[in-house]
Amino acid sequence: MDAKRSDSDREAGFEVGDDFRRFSQKDDIFCRSFWDPEVRSDRSDMFYETYRTPRMTWRPVDGFTQRDYALRNASWHVTDIFAELKGGEDRREGFLDPYTVGRDGPGSAAAVESPGEAARQVKHAARALGADLVGITGCDERWMYTHAYSRETETEKPQEVPAGLGNVIVIAQSMDRELLRTAPSALSGAATGATYSRDTIVLLAIEQYITNLGYRALASMNDSALVIPLAIKAGLGEYGRHGLLITRDFGPRVRLGKVFTDMPLAHDRPVRFGVKETCDICRACTDACPAKAIADAEPSTLVHNRSNIRGIRKWTTDAERCFRFWANQNTDCAICVRVCPYNRDFGRRGSRAWRWLAGTRLRRLALWLDRKSGRGRRLAPSRWWKAASQG
Amino acid sequence: MDAKRSDSDREAGFEVGDDFRRFSQKDDIFCRSFWDPEVRSDRSDMFYETYRTPRMTWRPVDGFTQRDYALRNASWHVTDIFAELKGGEDRREGFLDPYTVGRDGPGSAAAVESPGEAARQVKHAARALGADLVGITGCDERWMYTHAYSRETETEKPQEVPAGLGNVIVIAQSMDRELLRTAPSALSGAATGATYSRDTIVLLAIEQYITNLGYRALASMNDSALVIPLAIKAGLGEYGRHGLLITRDFGPRVRLGKVFTDMPLAHDRPVRFGVKETCDICRACTDACPAKAIADAEPSTLVHNRSNIRGIRKWTTDAERCFRFWANQNTDCAICVRVCPYNRDFGRRGSRAWRWLAGTRLRRLALWLDRKSGRGRRLAPSRWWKAASQG
Repeated sequence: MDAKRSDSDREAGFEVGDDFRRFSQKDDIFCRSFWDPEVRSDRSDMFYETYRTPRMTWRPVDGFTQRDYALRNASWHVTDIFAELKGGEDRREGFLDPYTVGRDGPGSAAAVESPGEAARQVKHAARALGADLVGITGCDERWMYTHAYSRETETEKPQEVPAGLGNVIVIAQSMDRELLRTAPSALSGAATGATYSRDTIVLLAIEQYITNLGYRALASMNDSALVIPLAIKAGLGEYGRHGLLITRDFGPRVRLGKVFTDMPLAHDRPVRFGVKETCDICRACTDACPAKAIADAEPSTLVHNRSNIRGIRKWTTDAERCFRFWANQNTDCAICVRVCPYNRDFGRRGSRAWRWLAGTRLRRLALWLDRKSGRGRRLAPSRWWKAASQG
Repeated sequence: MDAKRSDSDREAGFEVGDDFRRFSQKDDIFCRSFWDPEVRSDRSDMFYETYRTPRMTWRPVDGFTQRDYALRNASWHVTDIFAELKGGEDRREGFLDPYTVGRDGPGSAAAVESPGEAARQVKHAARALGADLVGITGCDERWMYTHAYSRETETEKPQEVPAGLGNVIVIAQSMDRELLRTAPSALSGAATGATYSRDTIVLLAIEQYITNLGYRALASMNDSALVIPLAIKAGLGEYGRHGLLITRDFGPRVRLGKVFTDMPLAHDRPVRFGVKETCDICRACTDACPAKAIADAEPSTLVHNRSNIRGIRKWTTDAERCFRFWANQNTDCAICVRVCPYNRDFGRRGSRAWRWLAGTRLRRLALWLDRKSGRGRRLAPSRWWKAASQG
């Protein structure tokens, strides 16, 4: 088992040491911004208030005007509804707790021809239900949070994912590239919110599909587990220097979600298309991050603070610095996504050619071409609003 | 005013007579399937039950097996959640009542540069929030239901859209073409459900965006008004022989929704791209309809039964025949959508060339080519499941 796990880790590029310790969601930077005085501040309280309180102006700066916040907060609306639906039960579904809005299944399970065929059909169904990318892997307890977090008591509460859900369907939803070009801005936050909304409805539908087949399924967005290692194992992409998943089809421009299930499903294998080697020599995100939160050095076991998981050799972001910048500017930031050379429209032939080049020994040329092209430059939010639109 | 209205009707191709009478939602075929013994039957009760009750098998026929119903019902799940959220208050939001899950706005309205600029920005925002097509028109009381329908009392209840919401933003969401190729089947019903789910989240987000700007807005899906005349006035497409909207970009393969608002917005104009002239000589839907529910003759003021609006010269479908077929086969039908020559992937150059040809005097050639191509043939549902899938 250990040998098998270490083979599988090697294939995924994971370097997990003997000092590895599982993570509790309480140490997630967003949870800490409520209970931990080292993170919570007037600015962080204000940051959350901008999502809740309609106001004419928060900052008299392009990208932070009323229309920008109006759009950002509208984009979060559906996810908020689900997050607040069971607030009276100390649940914040999609963020701190898995979803519990499913209907009951038929009571007995449909026969499965083979795990391979079942996996193929589940993926086909997931895409028909709106998933952009789908992969499947085994549930690995190392990536499960040791505990969930209660906003009511501001402390740990038990993990909810029941034993026996041995497989995880991981999905990635692509984010709007034009909105993200305006990062950092309240406007670019609309890409985040809109993608979470799509994530929510697709996860709920996949959960219900499996339930309707008679198996157990649990839809989960940001709660319950670290999703990036699961996504890598499920073949959705590689790990990038900025600590984000980089997918073949959308680069880092995705949000993730997962459905735990006991349905017998074949697993995918990790993919490699040169990201590690490119990130080794690229510093686009590191240099662009105003908070200096992104690794400049080799992968290491460095831990900045309690928001980092311990015992894994990797590029590690300083979540405290990152979040402080968010709080100070009253919205989330996605500069690292914007500047990442893999943030391209891969529907275009030129982008696919670039990806191919970045997968070869000519990747320095690929990075030079990317810098020269000006692709990662910020679009003024007022220009996004002016953009001619077709319909 | 009357002259202006009749100019505007002419531009939209509406022929509204003096005997015109507004429609009450109670006469909608779905409402009648509850209160009207002429429509309600054991088969129609069973039809609804298949959406609610998980079961291993409903019909031992390809396209109606467990996986087909599992996927169809999963696709409806999110819309169902919203439809049932306020069931205790005799509301079925999205179908019989407008949505009431919005947050409050800021209390005062953002200045609008001009209705034209405001309309452009609202459309741009709507597309960023996930709308496929967006158009704007004035609220026309002729298309508003005289009354809403109460499932609890099985009778009429007051219309809820408040006076003063003079503009309507109409959206169209495209439906999955591959799933629809399998119509009629429970499987193809997944295209309906998945599109309603997307419709719901986009309508709620647009409503919230306008609310956040300080204006009044009300999101509405199938409730409150007849949406097809509004969509035509808003420039989303033309009216087809099958009684459905035919859009330029997705043909008849859309579902519609609307947001009523008092925000000052410029209106769009109807579009014409040859649909009327093509439907005049095409009978693809009429011939393919197993229920013989679609008009074979010229537009007329014929009324089949109380589910038809009175006093409009148009192609009119027999909703009783149509729904009886749905009830008998335990799922919705979309054969008329599948066979419609405008049901194409207009992302492809060949399809755009076909649309151009169908807009010229060579439209008989276009229809002949369409028949020869086999485009509208049914795909066996089991082949949909077998289809190789990428991603």
